[in-house]
Amino acid sequence: MEEFREWGHRLVDWVADYLQNAGERPVLHSVRPNDIVNALPARGPEQGEPMERIWADFEKIVLPGVTHWNHPNFLAYFANTSAPPAILAEFVAAALNANGILWKTSPAVTELEVVTLRWLLDWLGLPAEWFGMILDTASTSTLHALAAARVHVAPETRDAGAPPNLVVYCSDQAHSSVEKGAMALGFGRRQVRLIASDEAFRMRADALQETIRRDRAAGLLPCCVVATVGTTSTTSVDPVRAIAEVAEREGLWLHVDAAYAGSAAVAPELRWLLDGCERADSLVFNPHKWLMVPVDCSVLYSRHPETLQRAFSLVPPILNTTDGGLNMMDYGVPLGRRFRSLKLWFVLRYYGREGLAQVIREQVAMTAELRDRIAADSRFEICAPCNLSVVCFRLRGTNEANSRLLEAVNRGGRFFLSQTVLGGRVVLRIAVGNMWTKRETLDAVWGEIERLARTAFPE
Amino acid sequence: MEEFREWGHRLVDWVADYLQNAGERPVLHSVRPNDIVNALPARGPEQGEPMERIWADFEKIVLPGVTHWNHPNFLAYFANTSAPPAILAEFVAAALNANGILWKTSPAVTELEVVTLRWLLDWLGLPAEWFGMILDTASTSTLHALAAARVHVAPETRDAGAPPNLVVYCSDQAHSSVEKGAMALGFGRRQVRLIASDEAFRMRADALQETIRRDRAAGLLPCCVVATVGTTSTTSVDPVRAIAEVAEREGLWLHVDAAYAGSAAVAPELRWLLDGCERADSLVFNPHKWLMVPVDCSVLYSRHPETLQRAFSLVPPILNTTDGGLNMMDYGVPLGRRFRSLKLWFVLRYYGREGLAQVIREQVAMTAELRDRIAADSRFEICAPCNLSVVCFRLRGTNEANSRLLEAVNRGGRFFLSQTVLGGRVVLRIAVGNMWTKRETLDAVWGEIERLARTAFPE
Repeated sequence: MEEFREWGHRLVDWVADYLQNAGERPVLHSVRPNDIVNALPARGPEQGEPMERIWADFEKIVLPGVTHWNHPNFLAYFANTSAPPAILAEFVAAALNANGILWKTSPAVTELEVVTLRWLLDWLGLPAEWFGMILDTASTSTLHALAAARVHVAPETRDAGAPPNLVVYCSDQAHSSVEKGAMALGFGRRQVRLIASDEAFRMRADALQETIRRDRAAGLLPCCVVATVGTTSTTSVDPVRAIAEVAEREGLWLHVDAAYAGSAAVAPELRWLLDGCERADSLVFNPHKWLMVPVDCSVLYSRHPETLQRAFSLVPPILNTTDGGLNMMDYGVPLGRRFRSLKLWFVLRYYGREGLAQVIREQVAMTAELRDRIAADSRFEICAPCNLSVVCFRLRGTNEANSRLLEAVNRGGRFFLSQTVLGGRVVLRIAVGNMWTKRETLDAVWGEIERLARTAFPE
Repeated sequence: MEEFREWGHRLVDWVADYLQNAGERPVLHSVRPNDIVNALPARGPEQGEPMERIWADFEKIVLPGVTHWNHPNFLAYFANTSAPPAILAEFVAAALNANGILWKTSPAVTELEVVTLRWLLDWLGLPAEWFGMILDTASTSTLHALAAARVHVAPETRDAGAPPNLVVYCSDQAHSSVEKGAMALGFGRRQVRLIASDEAFRMRADALQETIRRDRAAGLLPCCVVATVGTTSTTSVDPVRAIAEVAEREGLWLHVDAAYAGSAAVAPELRWLLDGCERADSLVFNPHKWLMVPVDCSVLYSRHPETLQRAFSLVPPILNTTDGGLNMMDYGVPLGRRFRSLKLWFVLRYYGREGLAQVIREQVAMTAELRDRIAADSRFEICAPCNLSVVCFRLRGTNEANSRLLEAVNRGGRFFLSQTVLGGRVVLRIAVGNMWTKRETLDAVWGEIERLARTAFPE
């Protein structure tokens, strides 16, 4: 244990230095495909190796292949944070190795999950009685919601198998995980309808209603509609209340994908984001996206735990219990459950609701300022309403010019941005979401883009 | 960052002490349902709290609710280990927060996964060209395998949806995750056949063949057979070679569940366990079960990566890439991917193949010695062949007496065992698998059982 102690102290200092100076590293990796594979031996070692050598290879071979998500200049996808107290919690959780298969296999795993997810319901203004559980990613959470929706609409699925004519609805801006989940579950891509969105990229509830009508007329069975609060491309917010009206009238399960934007509702002035969500049958949001918790930590809520049980519960004799504790395995696919609630609990307590709200509030404000600066430059256009912490913009020019601009920024090594496509047009995205990102970061990235636009793409 | 540094050092010492002295704690938690929920506030804090207070609550409220998996006397389910180098790797991974959505979002996440999973193919004697990826648990891996099997046998599933007449086969000793996965995917429980096992709890290949014949005659479409190498109840090993013959002849996908026992094949003398598995279409094994890696780390291998892609790949514009890197998201449900390969790489290097083999070899040997001691006591009987690190036994008496004996052992607080049911009879299981468990541990648990049998259940 002396070796562990010594290396532990050494790595604590390494991590502290890393967090302090992350901004001095290139944010993007600096390797080509297979560089790391080729730099490491094709066969594993027969005999054990000293920590010194493993760590040397980590610094020399692995680290150049890391894209630094916990870096202030990471502005791609949905930027996020691994907050210091959460890093410590993950360390302790790995040491305990507690596994929440059943309540009794580590009650703290299950009960801290119950406690933290109730706190979050309260902070987000969602119904206090909802059931919640932590899964790895929003893709997995949405797959669970779709499976529950299917059992809800067609209870015979559990025993007799799924009927072939079920249909899933989401907007043409929904995350690919909806279509992927439906496909993996055997719905078939043809049974997924991508409903048209309006000029602000929000699902049109009238188009949803009309499509359901047509599907019923064709003998199909509408099953589930997925509304998005904070789409991946533009952070647009579907009209959940109007969609809930349709879902209730038509007997569909309403699942809300608030993976990114849900967290923002910890700030009272952003509670409007979840308007209507209290009528959802299930909702996913990811504390690992915008609540400073390291990956992975996705929360799936549902008002129908008994439907999750119907979709997933099977108890073999080896896991039979009579202690009255809550066995999370009865509500989803995974049996093993890492102690993810520990890091969530550390973060919620260390920052408090107001501390988290303040970080998000600041990020929304500085993103709006960035948008205004971009909008004021006639060479650029803003491509979508900017309501949260993502700004979508482009050079007034060809798709190729925009792709080259993005590539030039990322190749520079100081910043990492991503792109999307809106109505066939390539659009650049700057996503703020890392707590280390400051106003100066956004000044600098805009300076870089503006400079590249001037020199590489002169008018 | 000074606070992080200070707490980091403090927690390194706490963890080192914990690992050193885990054996002095009660292995099982000491709480009743809702104790932890009730001890914590119903609402989360508005303002942030100091680390000192969070940690005090951790020690006072959370820790009594932890069942200590990383404790030498944990002998339930499949006991396992969180090895010191892996704990350090998890700490570093949490700080980096690298997310392997795409190759470029952190090439090291993907490429260390490629490297470590190739090393393991070599060590296990499996085909070098198999594709591998890390998922959270074996339940998730098996769900992926079943979805791939369905697309393999019925390629129209991806677009048109799953046909209603597909059938999945496994033995009556298979893990519940097979039936659960099939049910979640919409196969329907009636389309899962639990094939009879022989007197040593191994699937009968002749019964499999006969059941497939009958299903075909009834117009059903046999899709997938799941063979188990190391069943959960008794660690029995299905005759994979004979099952592969049937699967190949009948055009079924063969998935092997080697979640627990697969790791043992790092010891050459235990390679026989995977005999025939080179003919599988997919195979799952969990380094977090018997390879000293903390939860979660489940490996899914397949010879058909293109089938996984057909089952799961969907690329939205925001994730379009042209860099030629391997994007793991194309092969499964989760989009976000934690840097799980780091802990696996640390463990494989720190111990080496021979170091890991030596731990497993010792555990198998000491389990056999324990079995012999139990077999020599006429009050007890051994209930299944003991070929690996689990011994199944019972008092010669009623089910109730055995349940009471188990309860008495666990209530004592020094040891944690689990039970199963074989042919309607309650059976106690002692599972060795934690690297901290020594011969003296097994001497002591047997002493305790023997004492309880003598005093509480006199002849």
